[in-house]
Amino acid sequence: MKRARVGKVTVLAGGVGAARLLRGVAALVRPSDLTVIVNTADDDVFHGLHVSPDVDTILYTLSGLADPGRGWGLLGDTFHAIDALGRYGGDNWFRLGDRDLATHLFRTEELRAGRPLSAVTAAQARGLGVKVNVLPMSDGRVRTIIDSPQGRLSFQEYLVRERARPTVRSIRYEGIRTAKPAPGVLAAVEQADIVMIAPSNPFVSIGPILGLSGVRAALRRATAPVVAVSPLIGGRPVKGPADRMMRSLGMKPSPLPVADLYKDLLDGLVIDTADRSFVRALEKRGLRVATTNTLMKTPARSTAVAREVLSLADSVRAALAS
Amino acid sequence: MKRARVGKVTVLAGGVGAARLLRGVAALVRPSDLTVIVNTADDDVFHGLHVSPDVDTILYTLSGLADPGRGWGLLGDTFHAIDALGRYGGDNWFRLGDRDLATHLFRTEELRAGRPLSAVTAAQARGLGVKVNVLPMSDGRVRTIIDSPQGRLSFQEYLVRERARPTVRSIRYEGIRTAKPAPGVLAAVEQADIVMIAPSNPFVSIGPILGLSGVRAALRRATAPVVAVSPLIGGRPVKGPADRMMRSLGMKPSPLPVADLYKDLLDGLVIDTADRSFVRALEKRGLRVATTNTLMKTPARSTAVAREVLSLADSVRAALAS
Repeated sequence: MKRARVGKVTVLAGGVGAARLLRGVAALVRPSDLTVIVNTADDDVFHGLHVSPDVDTILYTLSGLADPGRGWGLLGDTFHAIDALGRYGGDNWFRLGDRDLATHLFRTEELRAGRPLSAVTAAQARGLGVKVNVLPMSDGRVRTIIDSPQGRLSFQEYLVRERARPTVRSIRYEGIRTAKPAPGVLAAVEQADIVMIAPSNPFVSIGPILGLSGVRAALRRATAPVVAVSPLIGGRPVKGPADRMMRSLGMKPSPLPVADLYKDLLDGLVIDTADRSFVRALEKRGLRVATTNTLMKTPARSTAVAREVLSLADSVRAALAS
Repeated sequence: MKRARVGKVTVLAGGVGAARLLRGVAALVRPSDLTVIVNTADDDVFHGLHVSPDVDTILYTLSGLADPGRGWGLLGDTFHAIDALGRYGGDNWFRLGDRDLATHLFRTEELRAGRPLSAVTAAQARGLGVKVNVLPMSDGRVRTIIDSPQGRLSFQEYLVRERARPTVRSIRYEGIRTAKPAPGVLAAVEQADIVMIAPSNPFVSIGPILGLSGVRAALRRATAPVVAVSPLIGGRPVKGPADRMMRSLGMKPSPLPVADLYKDLLDGLVIDTADRSFVRALEKRGLRVATTNTLMKTPARSTAVAREVLSLADSVRAALAS
């Protein structure tokens, strides 16, 4: 696959949806030109191990080791350790695979030795042969807290243990005021020729990145086109609870709330053809809109969607220049 | 198998050799009458996890989950996590199995939460269905340090990484003066009707237990017979570096140095028939001696050796009473 020189591309990313888009972007953009800023507000500690689900999904996908069907973990991984933990009465609702455990063991040990998450992530990318610049959003600690009728839940408790069933009353990013963007994050936004917002959950994946001090302002100031891919298709996400969260928070799931959540910084939005009835409303909000099949079941579809995003960014740039 | 009421039995134990004897003792003695005091001076931290090799070998053996051929770890375990760690450049010479990892993850998390090793070990015994009272020798930190021409080595570095090749100049138990015997250890020695010293390495397995404040004195004071099984057969251990250590330290490997190391507390010694030429010299040291095939390749041989130890203890008791 020919990788054109499209300039520097920076992608704001959550987990699975982002990984699927990135699979396509990486096929079109040289790794040295591509930076991914990954949500870490879903990070959690299981059995004493620091787990960064979105970082891992991105690294595993870009290295070709991910389990594409399941959307998390490594292809062909086994679950002997986590099953054996059950003997001791330990919680094991968060399914850590055996090979996957190596990632968390290494990360936890390095963090405990005082190395920042960004340095550990860079070492892991090297270990997995990933040449794309993958940055955790922060070396500080930010945690998404879901306020529900069952009380405060960490995001993984809400999503994995409770299967996203509780009503979401509100979402908070604990630590967001004191955490700083990781080294390179603001520069990657400021120096980008294109900024992409991946089809990730706007509340719990993209929201924390935008909430970090200076990130939203840098995106507003950016002269580069900022283009998002809507994570919803016909009002439903491919994966995850974005639609339930929207409903819980009094929004009708569609590309419109997505556009509204990003309205101060967004130039263009790629939506699924199933949502083409929203094109006019989105254009009225001042956005350039492209429609395509955004379900990225195959690498070829990932590349097609990535191409659509690059093309929309071009048309935004052309319009700004004219 | 009929389990006779032989009174309370307390066994001082290292890893594999001890586990093989205990397999037999557990077949003859009721679990509520059997206490094992296990060496923890070999404990080490790998990838941030607290590993207690001797405790694990004992627990895995008594639960029937051990790999009897290998002498460590769980039967049928896989090594996906430790192999995957190699990708990140982590040391992986200490082979932790995937199911085995669960033990270390649980232990590490519990220790970090402030629970003492003895409580964690009791919880693990319950989880594995082990009814024998398994006590780590101490809740404090004692570490065997091997001084060699390559410098100071932890015991696992010496044994596993360096394959016991370096010359042993001296052996130290770091922390032995401040560590206290775990709750129940001194009582188990004082209240025992029989004390057994397992066929474990006298320097690095039994030595640290005896080095703990009060243990050696309690054994000297004990009215119960104290009977050991020599870990050497024809001058060679079944497993481990006891013979090399003896030679390094200027001793000729045989039951004699074993008897000398325990001379202030020992009443009887079971030796292999291959070593019967040492019977007279041992008896001259005031010991009662029994000879048998001490290689415990099968559960039946373990039971036979355990029976020999119980019988020797009986004859010591009879002699003391007369």
